[in-house]
Amino acid sequence: MTRTAIWTSIAATLESEIAAELYTAGDKLPTEAALAARFGVNRHTVRRALGDLADRGLLRSRRGAGVFVEAPPTDYPIGRRVRFHQNIAASGRLPAKERLRIETRASSTLEAEALELAAGERVVVYEGLSMSGNAPLAHFISVFPLGRFPDIAETFATITSVTEALRQNGVADFTRRETRLTAEIASPTQALHLRLRDGDALMKSVAINVDAHGVPVEHGTTWFAGERVTLTITPE
Amino acid sequence: MTRTAIWTSIAATLESEIAAELYTAGDKLPTEAALAARFGVNRHTVRRALGDLADRGLLRSRRGAGVFVEAPPTDYPIGRRVRFHQNIAASGRLPAKERLRIETRASSTLEAEALELAAGERVVVYEGLSMSGNAPLAHFISVFPLGRFPDIAETFATITSVTEALRQNGVADFTRRETRLTAEIASPTQALHLRLRDGDALMKSVAINVDAHGVPVEHGTTWFAGERVTLTITPE
Repeated sequence: MTRTAIWTSIAATLESEIAAELYTAGDKLPTEAALAARFGVNRHTVRRALGDLADRGLLRSRRGAGVFVEAPPTDYPIGRRVRFHQNIAASGRLPAKERLRIETRASSTLEAEALELAAGERVVVYEGLSMSGNAPLAHFISVFPLGRFPDIAETFATITSVTEALRQNGVADFTRRETRLTAEIASPTQALHLRLRDGDALMKSVAINVDAHGVPVEHGTTWFAGERVTLTITPE
Repeated sequence: MTRTAIWTSIAATLESEIAAELYTAGDKLPTEAALAARFGVNRHTVRRALGDLADRGLLRSRRGAGVFVEAPPTDYPIGRRVRFHQNIAASGRLPAKERLRIETRASSTLEAEALELAAGERVVVYEGLSMSGNAPLAHFISVFPLGRFPDIAETFATITSVTEALRQNGVADFTRRETRLTAEIASPTQALHLRLRDGDALMKSVAINVDAHGVPVEHGTTWFAGERVTLTITPE
């Protein structure tokens, strides 16, 4: 057996294990050393197999963090009702949110305008990561008017879903008034959070959700990992 | 007058000339040497003034090509009817398209599926740049079924507007069935066409337009310059 055949066969083995979901999107693969031991080859051979899988979009390596399994892009519909949980569940994956920060502070000019508040009125900020299975899909910062939702910071301490938190704070239903999309390069912090390479592209969405009376209840900024999600727009 | 004051005053002069539209979005500024001669300073001082304006998003420099005036992002509504000309004109700028390629070839699997054609059926490909004033806003590749539009390649030889070309080929009106958005990094060719820096972010839109009977008439892929355009979605 030639050396080329060895790395090819290692790549094929790992590929079949990913296909069989022994490793799923967002999972970290064993280290090069561990794989070298498992297959009885040197690390150079392992690296060649991993490089081949990365070139084909099955893996993604992050310097210092390891090699992660990639998923095909998730479809994410942007319409009148945008619900993270439903959108991800519809793609057959497990939705989850990870809290990064909950705080109360004065609103920025942009936030006050979007939420129809007086300049500097206080808001509750909920920042976190949206996960699809094990893969981080997006980084979000959601802002809520404190005056209307005095207890929502406490709600977010136990509940990660915005839909559920708004419901517990008296908003039975809300709809999307507007979504504004631009493309950006990930900041180093975002690259780390979203397990991207430095310089990868993000889709930035700035959205306003309103209650049944058209009053803004949430100003949300979301940075979607560019290659992991496809925003879909289907006019109603 | 200190040296700091000189570059500050050069930056202020250029900023006021941009504000007065002596230089407008997409225009190339005079060379550093020309500006140095104009202001009676050395190129280092000019570079400092230009750097300040670039940091504030008013200019963008492209290695080997020069320094260009930037525009604030253009709003680009994505709804049931997406019309490039109307969208840009609504933002108070002059819409224009620049042809890069018109050709007839076999369809790809994706194109055939989107246009509801038999595999490999022939299509007309229209590739170009969408301009907003002097600034390239997007790079597009639009694909049309040759069977239905046998003359459309000729139409595009004289007309750059897709809306007008479809009208001349029997489609009085068309609507957007679906838009799919992802974020990507500009390829070197695209960076050149769109006057971006290498590694800048693009928003990629893949869309299907259908006629009044719901039959697909166009499969369009558009790469928007990430910082120059904001796609807006307002549910109807």
